[in-house]
Amino acid sequence: MTHGSIFVGELIGTAILILFGAGVCAAVTLNYSKAKGAGWIVIAFGWGFGVLAGAYTAAPKSGGHLNPAVTIGLAIADITKWGDVPYYLLGQMAGAILGAVLTWLLYFAQFQANAEEDKALPTLGIFSTAPEIRNPVANLITEIIATVGLVLPILFFGKNLGTGIGPIPGTTAYGSGIGILLVALLVVGIGLSLGGPTGYAINPARDLGPRITHALLPIPNKGTSDWGYAWIPVVGPLIGGALSALVYKAAF
Amino acid sequence: MTHGSIFVGELIGTAILILFGAGVCAAVTLNYSKAKGAGWIVIAFGWGFGVLAGAYTAAPKSGGHLNPAVTIGLAIADITKWGDVPYYLLGQMAGAILGAVLTWLLYFAQFQANAEEDKALPTLGIFSTAPEIRNPVANLITEIIATVGLVLPILFFGKNLGTGIGPIPGTTAYGSGIGILLVALLVVGIGLSLGGPTGYAINPARDLGPRITHALLPIPNKGTSDWGYAWIPVVGPLIGGALSALVYKAAF
Amino acid sequence: MTHGSIFVGELIGTAILILFGAGVCAAVTLNYSKAKGAGWIVIAFGWGFGVLAGAYTAAPKSGGHLNPAVTIGLAIADITKWGDVPYYLLGQMAGAILGAVLTWLLYFAQFQANAEEDKALPTLGIFSTAPEIRNPVANLITEIIATVGLVLPILFFGKNLGTGIGPIPGTTAYGSGIGILLVALLVVGIGLSLGGPTGYAINPARDLGPRITHALLPIPNKGTSDWGYAWIPVVGPLIGGALSALVYKAAF
Amino acid sequence: MTHGSIFVGELIGTAILILFGAGVCAAVTLNYSKAKGAGWIVIAFGWGFGVLAGAYTAAPKSGGHLNPAVTIGLAIADITKWGDVPYYLLGQMAGAILGAVLTWLLYFAQFQANAEEDKALPTLGIFSTAPEIRNPVANLITEIIATVGLVLPILFFGKNLGTGIGPIPGTTAYGSGIGILLVALLVVGIGLSLGGPTGYAINPARDLGPRITHALLPIPNKGTSDWGYAWIPVVGPLIGGALSALVYKAAF
Repeated sequence: MTHGSIFVGELIGTAILILFGAGVCAAVTLNYSKAKGAGWIVIAFGWGFGVLAGAYTAAPKSGGHLNPAVTIGLAIADITKWGDVPYYLLGQMAGAILGAVLTWLLYFAQFQANAEEDKALPTLGIFSTAPEIRNPVANLITEIIATVGLVLPILFFGKNLGTGIGPIPGTTAYGSGIGILLVALLVVGIGLSLGGPTGYAINPARDLGPRITHALLPIPNKGTSDWGYAWIPVVGPLIGGALSALVYKAAF
Repeated sequence: MTHGSIFVGELIGTAILILFGAGVCAAVTLNYSKAKGAGWIVIAFGWGFGVLAGAYTAAPKSGGHLNPAVTIGLAIADITKWGDVPYYLLGQMAGAILGAVLTWLLYFAQFQANAEEDKALPTLGIFSTAPEIRNPVANLITEIIATVGLVLPILFFGKNLGTGIGPIPGTTAYGSGIGILLVALLVVGIGLSLGGPTGYAINPARDLGPRITHALLPIPNKGTSDWGYAWIPVVGPLIGGALSALVYKAAF
Repeated sequence: MTHGSIFVGELIGTAILILFGAGVCAAVTLNYSKAKGAGWIVIAFGWGFGVLAGAYTAAPKSGGHLNPAVTIGLAIADITKWGDVPYYLLGQMAGAILGAVLTWLLYFAQFQANAEEDKALPTLGIFSTAPEIRNPVANLITEIIATVGLVLPILFFGKNLGTGIGPIPGTTAYGSGIGILLVALLVVGIGLSLGGPTGYAINPARDLGPRITHALLPIPNKGTSDWGYAWIPVVGPLIGGALSALVYKAAF
Repeated sequence: MTHGSIFVGELIGTAILILFGAGVCAAVTLNYSKAKGAGWIVIAFGWGFGVLAGAYTAAPKSGGHLNPAVTIGLAIADITKWGDVPYYLLGQMAGAILGAVLTWLLYFAQFQANAEEDKALPTLGIFSTAPEIRNPVANLITEIIATVGLVLPILFFGKNLGTGIGPIPGTTAYGSGIGILLVALLVVGIGLSLGGPTGYAINPARDLGPRITHALLPIPNKGTSDWGYAWIPVVGPLIGGALSALVYKAAF
């Protein structure tokens, strides 16, 4: 894979991921949405099938990481080349921003209607995560463990299946098959099980890209972008991805 | 594949898709249905598994497009022959009408009971889509982006998997395998994430066919067929399908 | 496959199907159940994953029909031998009765607690189907169409995938692979979309076997077994299965 | 597979299973969780996708049993060697305890907030099962039948698919493929359908390991560990696993 192919694949794939993920948050949050109030099961499946949509789309061009914590984990595990890492990260950040813009356009009338209400709902929760209880140490630990719940299985799945994210073992080719489907269902499970305290960023690009977009977009009455919390969903997932790679290297 | 095979496959497959899709809308809308009020998660899975049912059924005869936006996208991407396109579209429209009639027959007693109530519920929402906020430009943009969320992954999935909708790359044979399952789950995700503003037509036949059926069927107290909105779920998805093909051609 | 293998496979598989299916109805209906009131999405997935559990279990011994409407459809379509049909039907009926008994044992304390309440809930709905609007013609049509929604895709899936229910085309061997998974998800979809009016028997053994069990079991305060309705979920699915086979034979 | 590999695989896999399973119970139970009150569908999918995450992770090292009832069933069925059984059980118990500790850390702030409330919720239900109606005979029968609903299909799936849990028939190698995915969906179905009376332990390690953890962890106001019930979710599943193996041996 060329660096250009990696960048384009991650750009398109992450944009689709965020379109579905921020989209489902808009769907259950905003008034004048048919899915208003549809609950946590909808959130978790929306994000999980966003992974399915984005990662299978990106797979033939970049393998479909869509997440700096996955890329760092694969690099530490000697699966992804360190020289490719910057192109993954750039594509992921650009894609996350693009996806957040597309979500805003798709829900444009709903965002406008919200801004005109007497009590406009804060809109950051559509774009980025926030903790239920603000406690930096606890929130960081939550994001670290939840990310281990993502990246450790991805690394072991690759050993087992030879498909999905990451090249086929023993080759440099990227496969497909059911590997990404399993990762998508895994992400549904992470949402259901591990997302309660902080909303499961588990992906620095997923949180930081849309937060930047939220800060820049001309949404009236949009509320705060909460930059004080922004480092936790970046640092926690990176630590979780690195820890996963160390466990993987110790196990094989 | 002969033109006759394409027409028959799309006719049967799209009829099944609409039977499940309009069926689930009837199931959660009408009184005297065991699924009354069962919510958005039920709508999204009902439509998605309708794609699974219809597209796997159609696959050995036509490949299972079931959607003019998919057919147009595949044609622009040089995957489906332009000479086959009319037979796809005719089969899809005929199938959508047939499926809507079958839904009405399956829920016949419920439609009759509804008509006899003092305040009969409007029935168009069982057959076709309507926006939560009526704004043609915003609604059109919503349908365009949501359809890109369908057709772009389908095109890239084909590159990756060599299965499902569209012929196997490098051949004229139509495959099967997990490709259609992934598209079905993708459609669940589109419903959950992107369906909030307009109810995700993302398919001209899915919206126009049942709307024609609604206008023609002798359902008492059925309410308006809302022809003023009818062009948006036709034009938006066609633009979205074409845009997806252009991105695909630029990427490969 | 010997006749004995067919009988045993269908017996075990149908017992598992009914254990899961009647089980989920008990789970959402009875007091002192953790799933009390959990809704239609739970019903539909419970029955669908019961198909997954039962049919994959039965597959190496009988192919996993679990449903006389499927067996009749496959026989008319010249896929199952007519001489095997009686052993399928006997195994299915015996298995359905066994599964209903197991469900009663699993929820024994809940059934006892229900019987002791001032207003004991009627229990037939846990075992067998009942229409929301009692109208024999409409109910029969509903069951016919819903069963076509099951058996027609199964027949076409077999053409496409060469796996799952029914022997691999061109051989007498029974395969596995994803075919049964797709049928299981199809059954989830039928529940969500087509089950509203009558509760989707779509299977004579699924309805008649547990109805017999309900009539015979010593459940106090169990309410009526509603024999007046019992013919519809037998006759309707058999007609639907036969119609599906005729469409299949016309199409190929 | 070496004994060390078995122990490590089961340790990591069971820890992930319990992290997701106890995690989803925490998510829907505790205040200040985004999934608070999200219902039984969330519980069942959370546990099922925990099986997916844990068993695919463990598969290349141990085959991914994660459950003494599965291990005992496979040993009686002559699929797993009796000499390997102790290493499976040790790994499962150690993993279950580790997973429960990780869950507590992930939801640490929520556990603390709960302890400080006037009426702290009892926390055992997050870790271990409890019956809705306390009746040892009925509860034991429930756990036995529900475990047959797990282990019998697993044994038959292996015959059919040659993949997933247990070695590939005719070899000593452990496969992967869709076998574990099917078992994960099976566990979702068990939760939906068979979990109503007792909360479906169906796994001695899943119940006993977290119960020990609950007793040892310094959670303030944590409530009872209910040791009087603890034998039922150990004995019932072991009987169910053994019964399943006997049926399997009689059938093949």
